[in-house]
Amino acid sequence: MSLACTDDALIEDLIQEIGSGSVSIDTEVLATCSHDFGKLASDYQLPIAVVFAERVEDVQTALRLASAAGVSVVPRGAGTGVSGGANTSARCIVLSLERMNRILEIRVDDEVAVVEPGVVNADLNNAVAKHGLMYAPDPASYQQSTIGGNVATNAGGLRCAKYGVTTDSVLGLEVVLADGTLISTGRNTFKGVAGYDLTSLLVGSEGTLGIVVSVTVRLRYLSEKTCSIAAVFTDVAQAAAGVVAIARVRVQPAILELLDVGTLRVLDATYGSDLSARGGALLLVRTDGHGAEIEDAIIRSALENLGAQVTVAGDEQAVKLIEMRRASRGDGQDDRYRVGEDVAVPRSAMVEFMRTLDQIASRNRVMVRIVAHAGDGNLHPTFWVDPEDGPAGVGRLDAALEESVRAALAVGGTITGEHGVGTVKREWLGWEQSAEVVELQRKIKAVFDPKGILNPGKAIV
Amino acid sequence: MSLACTDDALIEDLIQEIGSGSVSIDTEVLATCSHDFGKLASDYQLPIAVVFAERVEDVQTALRLASAAGVSVVPRGAGTGVSGGANTSARCIVLSLERMNRILEIRVDDEVAVVEPGVVNADLNNAVAKHGLMYAPDPASYQQSTIGGNVATNAGGLRCAKYGVTTDSVLGLEVVLADGTLISTGRNTFKGVAGYDLTSLLVGSEGTLGIVVSVTVRLRYLSEKTCSIAAVFTDVAQAAAGVVAIARVRVQPAILELLDVGTLRVLDATYGSDLSARGGALLLVRTDGHGAEIEDAIIRSALENLGAQVTVAGDEQAVKLIEMRRASRGDGQDDRYRVGEDVAVPRSAMVEFMRTLDQIASRNRVMVRIVAHAGDGNLHPTFWVDPEDGPAGVGRLDAALEESVRAALAVGGTITGEHGVGTVKREWLGWEQSAEVVELQRKIKAVFDPKGILNPGKAIV
Repeated sequence: MSLACTDDALIEDLIQEIGSGSVSIDTEVLATCSHDFGKLASDYQLPIAVVFAERVEDVQTALRLASAAGVSVVPRGAGTGVSGGANTSARCIVLSLERMNRILEIRVDDEVAVVEPGVVNADLNNAVAKHGLMYAPDPASYQQSTIGGNVATNAGGLRCAKYGVTTDSVLGLEVVLADGTLISTGRNTFKGVAGYDLTSLLVGSEGTLGIVVSVTVRLRYLSEKTCSIAAVFTDVAQAAAGVVAIARVRVQPAILELLDVGTLRVLDATYGSDLSARGGALLLVRTDGHGAEIEDAIIRSALENLGAQVTVAGDEQAVKLIEMRRASRGDGQDDRYRVGEDVAVPRSAMVEFMRTLDQIASRNRVMVRIVAHAGDGNLHPTFWVDPEDGPAGVGRLDAALEESVRAALAVGGTITGEHGVGTVKREWLGWEQSAEVVELQRKIKAVFDPKGILNPGKAIV
Repeated sequence: MSLACTDDALIEDLIQEIGSGSVSIDTEVLATCSHDFGKLASDYQLPIAVVFAERVEDVQTALRLASAAGVSVVPRGAGTGVSGGANTSARCIVLSLERMNRILEIRVDDEVAVVEPGVVNADLNNAVAKHGLMYAPDPASYQQSTIGGNVATNAGGLRCAKYGVTTDSVLGLEVVLADGTLISTGRNTFKGVAGYDLTSLLVGSEGTLGIVVSVTVRLRYLSEKTCSIAAVFTDVAQAAAGVVAIARVRVQPAILELLDVGTLRVLDATYGSDLSARGGALLLVRTDGHGAEIEDAIIRSALENLGAQVTVAGDEQAVKLIEMRRASRGDGQDDRYRVGEDVAVPRSAMVEFMRTLDQIASRNRVMVRIVAHAGDGNLHPTFWVDPEDGPAGVGRLDAALEESVRAALAVGGTITGEHGVGTVKREWLGWEQSAEVVELQRKIKAVFDPKGILNPGKAIV
């Protein structure tokens, strides 16, 4: 029996057991579902089929059949990832969770919600806002990305400076294992230490250990009052001094973003603003909670006391800039001539590291601009070259990327602050992790997925 | 070769490689180091030796030798646990980490500290306080317990209502595996998603997966200003209504403790207060941060608006009561006639569950009093019987404990909110976890510790 026959049989079985409305072999659908939003690499191929699961049982069936056929399964949310985590591998089916988009429970007095994986982050937030609650993690993709995808990548965002990343809001999971078995991990309660923390192990594992079919999240209080500051500085070093000044007055902002002059130029071009004419770097700061106004006043005073030329813009413009930044996926999609990066470094290393990034860019004759979640030391430099430079430009771009990642590691940083390893960062993971850790991860993967069918080639090496 | 000979050879090797000053076979030392602070169960035996590690290499050597000899290793911090996690098992050495008590780094601008496992929680807090920082998790044992022990049990405390439990403050670990290999997990930075979250897997694993030899923790801002409230209510149901009222005005207190009348009587007897004469339940509330006073005013108003007889005591007494509660291990140690429990339930289930506990106690003719970390739904009922009741009383006590745990599970709770499974709660773990999860945990244990020498019989079943 040829592989093609086996694959046809698998498609037939999927259609028969899950229903023809839930299984697509349409070439356009296969193509759309074969990669994420990231760099247009050519490391993916058309899947055998896309299964649009609508119920837990569909996921179990798909995994049972794929497992029996020895076919890989690549899970997919909204496909807004940028590290290739949803890119297809050889001989696979794509398992889309986007139709499993029901909010199963909002337990207001418990401050807990239970959702299916395909619920869009913003939809959950809209649903709980009327109760004065929020789901805190807010990746820039929050208007499109799903909670399941956020869980798979342990997504960060802007508000995590104060409220933590995805794993800090996930209390429990329902997960289908590679053979179709359904398990529950974690708990319904805020605290709990019964057994190993399998929930945290699964969060950020990029669908390589199991398929999440429900997520129990802790909600936080949605602040009625927020205060916003947009402060223009002469350069990035001064803006970074502003970050330190805010920390030294011991205020934890809900949002603290640093934008360099290159990013300001993009904003100006997009929104007709004049930010880059006014200075060389911007800090966006938001405080929330019952102390928002007090904290706002303390921060304004600290920034003004820096002795630097600090322009504090009016609230309205600051709010607009922050919301724009919060919902922004950048000024366009990555391609082979342009890559957005995601390293994180210890906070005190940030200024020096940004200087290093400039040097790396100039040495390799590539362009760079930087946005940073400054409260977390998580930087998103975007490197690009002129497409007219062709393969030579791509070579310089790749060299600059590698150098930037090595530089982050050299100051005690990590290759990925929040985007995940996916396929794109796998070659760098061995620079950060020891052979022993790599081996432990492989063995853990084998415990959950002995046949290696779950999103192979992602997250670990 | 008899076991005894092998054991003698192991002792000799330990002394030769680690030094005679670091290895004890003194019977008194063996006895002291053979159990934790918990219920005086008889499930432990004298270890072969106690190794007092002073350096990472000592831990590696001890594990390498024990592994070769097939002897178990029971790690030990300050021994303040209450679930038997540090109780010795058959044919083991105890590996004490209490001499590894150096704070290795305090990186003020990174808001990070790196400590050896034997550092006492309060010592770390004292060391960072001068920088306006704190290590947030504060189990009631914080003046004695070590960071390593806190990591082993994923310890909670009072401040975790707002600041999270141990795992939320741990960024990275250095860990010696069963065969003596040293690995690093996690990171130096606030954010990072490279590979699986082995750090969270190790936190709370009670020394069954590896021995933690250094901990990188995130520090938080120590509030200059805190506000404290002690509110007396007529009964527990009313106090619980107070908890709900605080949540409904969307204030997240740093501390929110609920004490029932039985606990008030103990306080009165110990401190000469008259709390139990004034009411039937007490809420202790602390707000902190720059919004502390605003939040304090909102809470006071919410409690007064309840329409209930709410007495808000002066700040000074509230501060005293909270500090007393924060540092309190209760009014004495557990024994076979008295057991402190640690279930957690969804917050909305708390009042009804406390009523159930009363019914269980009365049905089984045992006494009960309750303290709850009300912000987290984590309850510490203490059950006791008159020692004169002998074995019959112990039987009723055990029946009541079991019923209380089953009742917590029935409302969606967990068998342990923060104390850990240890040996004491192992028989209950299967009530909470499915056979598949039990099996996954066993396999993960086997990945880290194929010979099963690391703290056998703890944390999982």
